[in-house]
Amino acid sequence: MNVIEQRLSEMGLVLPPPLVPPAGVVLPFRMVRVLGNRALISGHGPQNADGTLGFFGRVGADVSTEMAYQAAQATALSILASLKRELGSLERISRWGRIFGMVASAPGFSLQPHVINGFSDLIIALFGEEVGQHSRTAIGMAELPFGICVEIEGEVELVD
Amino acid sequence: MNVIEQRLSEMGLVLPPPLVPPAGVVLPFRMVRVLGNRALISGHGPQNADGTLGFFGRVGADVSTEMAYQAAQATALSILASLKRELGSLERISRWGRIFGMVASAPGFSLQPHVINGFSDLIIALFGEEVGQHSRTAIGMAELPFGICVEIEGEVELVD
Amino acid sequence: MNVIEQRLSEMGLVLPPPLVPPAGVVLPFRMVRVLGNRALISGHGPQNADGTLGFFGRVGADVSTEMAYQAAQATALSILASLKRELGSLERISRWGRIFGMVASAPGFSLQPHVINGFSDLIIALFGEEVGQHSRTAIGMAELPFGICVEIEGEVELVD
Repeated sequence: MNVIEQRLSEMGLVLPPPLVPPAGVVLPFRMVRVLGNRALISGHGPQNADGTLGFFGRVGADVSTEMAYQAAQATALSILASLKRELGSLERISRWGRIFGMVASAPGFSLQPHVINGFSDLIIALFGEEVGQHSRTAIGMAELPFGICVEIEGEVELVD
Repeated sequence: MNVIEQRLSEMGLVLPPPLVPPAGVVLPFRMVRVLGNRALISGHGPQNADGTLGFFGRVGADVSTEMAYQAAQATALSILASLKRELGSLERISRWGRIFGMVASAPGFSLQPHVINGFSDLIIALFGEEVGQHSRTAIGMAELPFGICVEIEGEVELVD
Repeated sequence: MNVIEQRLSEMGLVLPPPLVPPAGVVLPFRMVRVLGNRALISGHGPQNADGTLGFFGRVGADVSTEMAYQAAQATALSILASLKRELGSLERISRWGRIFGMVASAPGFSLQPHVINGFSDLIIALFGEEVGQHSRTAIGMAELPFGICVEIEGEVELVD
């Protein structure tokens, strides 16, 4: 077990299985697309332990800011799981790059950065300040697929 | 005529002319910006045969999911047309990369992935699984420019 | 003083100090993340001269299109200030790349391109057509952090 997965284990966190999409949904794209030393990460949502999507609703109405923080952390785990499947090992990540965090927001909810901190805090705790740092945007969406409350896409740099 | 354009022709599809923006609109940027072996694709919308924008309204209210699928396919044609004008030939695309699909969504509409499949299905049919695959995000927007129902931006890798 | 900063000065424009976030807000990421010859720019908003965020409200309701154009120009200044702090000099920018402009939009407001022109016009005036050109997307958001009316993220290419 490598360092990142050891840290995850020590934190009591588990990577989810591949996404089980809602019935009848076809997703004809890759969760991670590698181009040279870049891994482009598709929009991911929070998953349950069985691989299905979880954490539905709008933040500021159906979902609290604290619960949405947990959803952003769960989305980080989904992304890490996809990266591990595509790359073989999370040790191939040399530096985190761009993170784009989307929060399904009730009218007037404007604490999207608090929510996406659930992602950033975990990634920096796991990878450290040097590798784990990233650029970031956090915004409020009208609607996210299937009613999830958080979706995150991004990019990491790979060891040559 | 190259392979991609031959396939388009066999499918009865035609690339649109350059965008004719609404009256009084100045768009002081490039539809495609090439940096090294990357072509960065500006947000494109669906065009009519005369180059103007089409497919207006919100999906889930004014526009059906099926019609929005067609709008996403039309947006793929707009993007291919811009890439051909900038690159000279679509054969210069070595791999598709990041695709970011935005759907103007009525409250409660959450089938954005179904809509953006109109883009993904066409690109994979034209370029094949290896070259045409991509990372993807599909989300619901409050508003899109001029009231179009779909807008897509992204990035492709070019042959060195 | 280099050419870009001289032009800014001639235009009577001043780069703002580092962002002073709202009370209690932790932003655990970098405003600019450099990966190789790419500078990835986090989502920035318009700042006041004291570093705090400004230009609050929704365009099309609380904020006019012309005021939002000014907000997009102010956001360009925030981005230039972050790039200067991270890179040491704005002369290290060899070419502008992807620009992603987000406008907090009242229902029915669809002139996002007019708003984001406040960014594009300034960058092209400062850097010229060759270096300053960029790909661009301009869209309407349900909510932006802390109620700002414009947020912009993007990427520039650096001199090797």
